[in-house]
Amino acid sequence: MKRTELGELGEFGLIDRLKENVKIYQPSTVFGIGDDAAVIDSGTHYTLVSTDMLVEGVHFDLSYVPLKHLGYKAIAVNMSDIAAMNGIPKQVTVSISLSNRFSVEAIEEIYEGINAACENYKVDLVGGDTTSTRAGLALSITAIGEVSKEAISYRKGAKANDVLCVTGDLGAAYLGLQVLEREKQVFLDNPEMKPELNDHEYLVGRQLKPEGRTDIVHDLKEKGIVPTSMIDISDGLASEILHISKASGVGMTVFVDNIPIENKTLTTANEFNVNPITVVMNGGEDYELLMTISQEDYEKVKAIPEITPIGFVTEDKNNILVTNSGEKVSITAQGWNHLQDKE
Amino acid sequence: MKRTELGELGEFGLIDRLKENVKIYQPSTVFGIGDDAAVIDSGTHYTLVSTDMLVEGVHFDLSYVPLKHLGYKAIAVNMSDIAAMNGIPKQVTVSISLSNRFSVEAIEEIYEGINAACENYKVDLVGGDTTSTRAGLALSITAIGEVSKEAISYRKGAKANDVLCVTGDLGAAYLGLQVLEREKQVFLDNPEMKPELNDHEYLVGRQLKPEGRTDIVHDLKEKGIVPTSMIDISDGLASEILHISKASGVGMTVFVDNIPIENKTLTTANEFNVNPITVVMNGGEDYELLMTISQEDYEKVKAIPEITPIGFVTEDKNNILVTNSGEKVSITAQGWNHLQDKE
Repeated sequence: MKRTELGELGEFGLIDRLKENVKIYQPSTVFGIGDDAAVIDSGTHYTLVSTDMLVEGVHFDLSYVPLKHLGYKAIAVNMSDIAAMNGIPKQVTVSISLSNRFSVEAIEEIYEGINAACENYKVDLVGGDTTSTRAGLALSITAIGEVSKEAISYRKGAKANDVLCVTGDLGAAYLGLQVLEREKQVFLDNPEMKPELNDHEYLVGRQLKPEGRTDIVHDLKEKGIVPTSMIDISDGLASEILHISKASGVGMTVFVDNIPIENKTLTTANEFNVNPITVVMNGGEDYELLMTISQEDYEKVKAIPEITPIGFVTEDKNNILVTNSGEKVSITAQGWNHLQDKE
Repeated sequence: MKRTELGELGEFGLIDRLKENVKIYQPSTVFGIGDDAAVIDSGTHYTLVSTDMLVEGVHFDLSYVPLKHLGYKAIAVNMSDIAAMNGIPKQVTVSISLSNRFSVEAIEEIYEGINAACENYKVDLVGGDTTSTRAGLALSITAIGEVSKEAISYRKGAKANDVLCVTGDLGAAYLGLQVLEREKQVFLDNPEMKPELNDHEYLVGRQLKPEGRTDIVHDLKEKGIVPTSMIDISDGLASEILHISKASGVGMTVFVDNIPIENKTLTTANEFNVNPITVVMNGGEDYELLMTISQEDYEKVKAIPEITPIGFVTEDKNNILVTNSGEKVSITAQGWNHLQDKE
């Protein structure tokens, strides 16, 4: 029998392949695989369903991620998926598998973080499963949300001449991870050394305790704006731009000068000898929102300080980054390699 | 710091402990942790959400569980949870974590089973997550269902004098597992030996390819019956009786003579030198339904051949098994040990 390695296909390739055989039987299924959340018609509104699995050694390293933060983050990243549909999260289920290396007290610490996140987002923990496993720790979260039928934002709705915007600032979470990895190495080399995180509090905070931007969903509603498309920035800006581009059949032009990056991110990128734009494009885990807004909503968007316009949508499907010097670089899945080659 | 081992609390003890700190913020949350599915008010109806995690080496052994069957069963057991609320499943999400021991073709085999189950139950695969892990395979399934507000059955509604009923037959799945374990051992001792499963096709089928009884939900609706309480039989009859007893604040009296057990189950129990009632009470994985029906619906229930009355509900909270000889045995969480002690 033929054996294809997972690495040959990649996660998105695998999803595309599996999607081919999926059939839809229920009229209440409005949108299935292929966006930040599934969309189910509940009569008066849409119900949103999003799910994520976090695995020790792949998504987190318990040598520097406190259990409480892990619980918090697991919820927050799912809030981000619901927000990306312009929805408000309402309920979550949490399944945990863990080995007997973990005590009841350890589980309670994880749940402390989960409960803190639930309180912050006002979502209800309504179910789950707890099971033993041979090794390691894994969490599987499902978030349920609501959105009015008129307000839903898919990845597929971007139109030519729409304004491309992002929330917050980008690149910090990835550099926070680099700081944590470096301090772990220092500690492994010399356990007497104390980790020096104070100077990088912001970046480390963005990595360990990200927030899903449900606040933006409220802001947009207040201003009467429905983004023509939206996605959350979990895999880096390049990847998300390509998702909207592919789903909407349009291109995007992004101006490097306009991308919001914190000073701390710039100086730390320098410290690690990486290009901050590379970090933004491919770093990931910012959990900010990338959205397109129709021109007529542009004035209204300017009144939301947390939203920054970074470019515009084009009819042709080329995705282009315009650098400070005016040079145009193509945004590809391997975008940051290309960028680095150019330097 | 105090360290409490998971085994000291047990799964249900842990759930009770974690539940203490869970707060409810959303008016749409009708029922959270503590039944077969969470209940969310969607306006015109209730949305049901159930989730399950299946871990290699804990819930399944790939040395005798074909990947396709694993995928099928993962869906079917979640259909069972929705059916236990008297609901109809509509959508599922599937998350899979797996090591690089598995190829793309292996994942496709799992999804073949998942798709076959989706087709059988007419549910839509609307989302999920696929991630790598260091070792092993785990699946996390969330099922979404619907039930009309008048037809929902909780664990908590059983009333004195209700008739206690089960669907199908019990005990087969557990013995199917024993057969598979025995044949695995034979194979490990002598790889030339072919497994002899033909004679135990029914039992092995019940273990490898169980079905959630959504057909019963349709039957009940057709006859105009709403069970006063319902639960699916996943952990053995004793455990489920105790769940309904605790949630409803009643007791149950069960007549051993009335419990539906297939001949093949009886003869195989004999072959394995175990008491078939012990198997039924504590074996698990039957995925049949246990329900209580008010006396006035009793005539209507008799018209559904797949439902068998096995006892009745009492005001006092004693759960009692009446043996063939008229002896009364108390049903406890360690029920089968007590039973064996009596023999």
